[in-house]
Amino acid sequence: MRLVSYRDRGAPGVGVMADDTGFVALPKVAPDLPRGLRGILELGEAGLRRARAAAESRAPDLRLDQVSLDPVIPDPQAIWCLALNFKRHIEETRLSTSPDHPQIFLRIPASQVGHNQPMLCPDPKIARAYDYEGELAVIIGRGGRHIPEREALSHVAGYSCYNEGSVREFQAHNRQFGLGKNFERSGSFGPWLMTPDEFGDPYAQTVTTRLNGVDRQRGALDDMLFTIEKVISYLSTGYAIRPGDVISMGAPGALPLRPGETAEQFGPIKVAGVVHMKPGDVVSVEITGLGTLVNPIVADDTAI
Amino acid sequence: MRLVSYRDRGAPGVGVMADDTGFVALPKVAPDLPRGLRGILELGEAGLRRARAAAESRAPDLRLDQVSLDPVIPDPQAIWCLALNFKRHIEETRLSTSPDHPQIFLRIPASQVGHNQPMLCPDPKIARAYDYEGELAVIIGRGGRHIPEREALSHVAGYSCYNEGSVREFQAHNRQFGLGKNFERSGSFGPWLMTPDEFGDPYAQTVTTRLNGVDRQRGALDDMLFTIEKVISYLSTGYAIRPGDVISMGAPGALPLRPGETAEQFGPIKVAGVVHMKPGDVVSVEITGLGTLVNPIVADDTAI
Repeated sequence: MRLVSYRDRGAPGVGVMADDTGFVALPKVAPDLPRGLRGILELGEAGLRRARAAAESRAPDLRLDQVSLDPVIPDPQAIWCLALNFKRHIEETRLSTSPDHPQIFLRIPASQVGHNQPMLCPDPKIARAYDYEGELAVIIGRGGRHIPEREALSHVAGYSCYNEGSVREFQAHNRQFGLGKNFERSGSFGPWLMTPDEFGDPYAQTVTTRLNGVDRQRGALDDMLFTIEKVISYLSTGYAIRPGDVISMGAPGALPLRPGETAEQFGPIKVAGVVHMKPGDVVSVEITGLGTLVNPIVADDTAI
Repeated sequence: MRLVSYRDRGAPGVGVMADDTGFVALPKVAPDLPRGLRGILELGEAGLRRARAAAESRAPDLRLDQVSLDPVIPDPQAIWCLALNFKRHIEETRLSTSPDHPQIFLRIPASQVGHNQPMLCPDPKIARAYDYEGELAVIIGRGGRHIPEREALSHVAGYSCYNEGSVREFQAHNRQFGLGKNFERSGSFGPWLMTPDEFGDPYAQTVTTRLNGVDRQRGALDDMLFTIEKVISYLSTGYAIRPGDVISMGAPGALPLRPGETAEQFGPIKVAGVVHMKPGDVVSVEITGLGTLVNPIVADDTAI
């Protein structure tokens, strides 16, 4: 099952995809379910079961291009993000990271948009190195504390794509990433939550980031330093994971620049191979077997 | 005006303090105001004005000891925290920090409790260095973007105390603080929001942290490397600050251990002078002219 969070003329709802373009609107067929996906997940297994039953064998009510998509979970209580979790990305950044404990930071909900929504590129007077990071997002279903690795995947409601858009100059302002990972509408999360029964083994899949159709980052999801199970278990030593929490598993390595491309033409490149996003670009994050998250890059024209 | 967020038999409400122990319950005298303080702040200046008018010259309905206090803002959209922002704290940690840009990380709402509520000490099998950090919390009233320093204080709804409780071993697991600053109910935020007209000049005040009545940290609020104005202006270059957002301004320096005290007796001390909190302790953060945030330390007895 694939679920989307959408707005139809401003009203939020959750939809169950009937095919690749149309979905069954749960507010119509299951009006007693919560309007938000986090609320549905908070009902426990019954939430997704009721969504599935309500949508089963129905024709789609709406198409994706008739609504605006929100981030898969618009209001998570925590968005945990991993830094330097793919071996090739560690090599290309030339940064050190602990081999024993994952490197984790937080994003806030205001820093993310949904599929097809504009991601905001900072004004060049503020920053020029606005970079994509295509990642696997894990969405928690069942909460819990002190979760052993062998039980961790039973707490996962589903998976999605995450573009962990980063403003490198601000990320490097000081030791903690802080604002550099939390610019307004700088990241994206979608297009949908795919349940584990449909996605299958995440480690058999590949994530690819493309800018204007050119492959720029690619990694097999079995190249992670810390697995999904390890990260869930680690977080739960100190924190009770909650339904709707998001864990973005970190970016893979970048691909080399293409013949004829030089770092200079993209501006001051901060991570080898990662070129910056600019207004007018289109960025996509594809995870095989899951889907593709696409976003246009638009200038943040907030008056300075 | 001082405002508290409370629960009375489970029902949330906001109260206006009538004296140091009693408050006027807004759900009773202004039932059309939002139930949460963030909602009241989202009404703009009218929100606090209506709260003030509704409570004016009324006798208190409830005493603090009749309710449980929530964090001043239970559901902020962002809790921005400063690391290494007091000159003495920088010296004592022997860590470097940028002189040009503040060092900022995030906490999640689940990591905070209210005044008089238990703060949870991790099981010693998980961590032993659970440390207080007494700080000034700034609460945003009016949102905005690209805010010049000279206008920054006009965006502040009020001030409070913050105990930015930290689990040092986890904080040091890797480069980003991550989980070490976000253990379940490890920090505290209260007792109330005091409006700027009542608090006056924040830089004329002093923050003191006490453990079991012994002064352990103290700093004048004019010892900050980055002022409130600078931090609000900095954040707003990338992020539209929102009503109810919290900025915790960083911890001051620790006081030396007392004669006869040795680091050994407190366990493996991570920051010179900062002794660890243990179940049975009582920790307080006092800001002169504002109030005192008190919390008992209770063992986190979640089954491992």
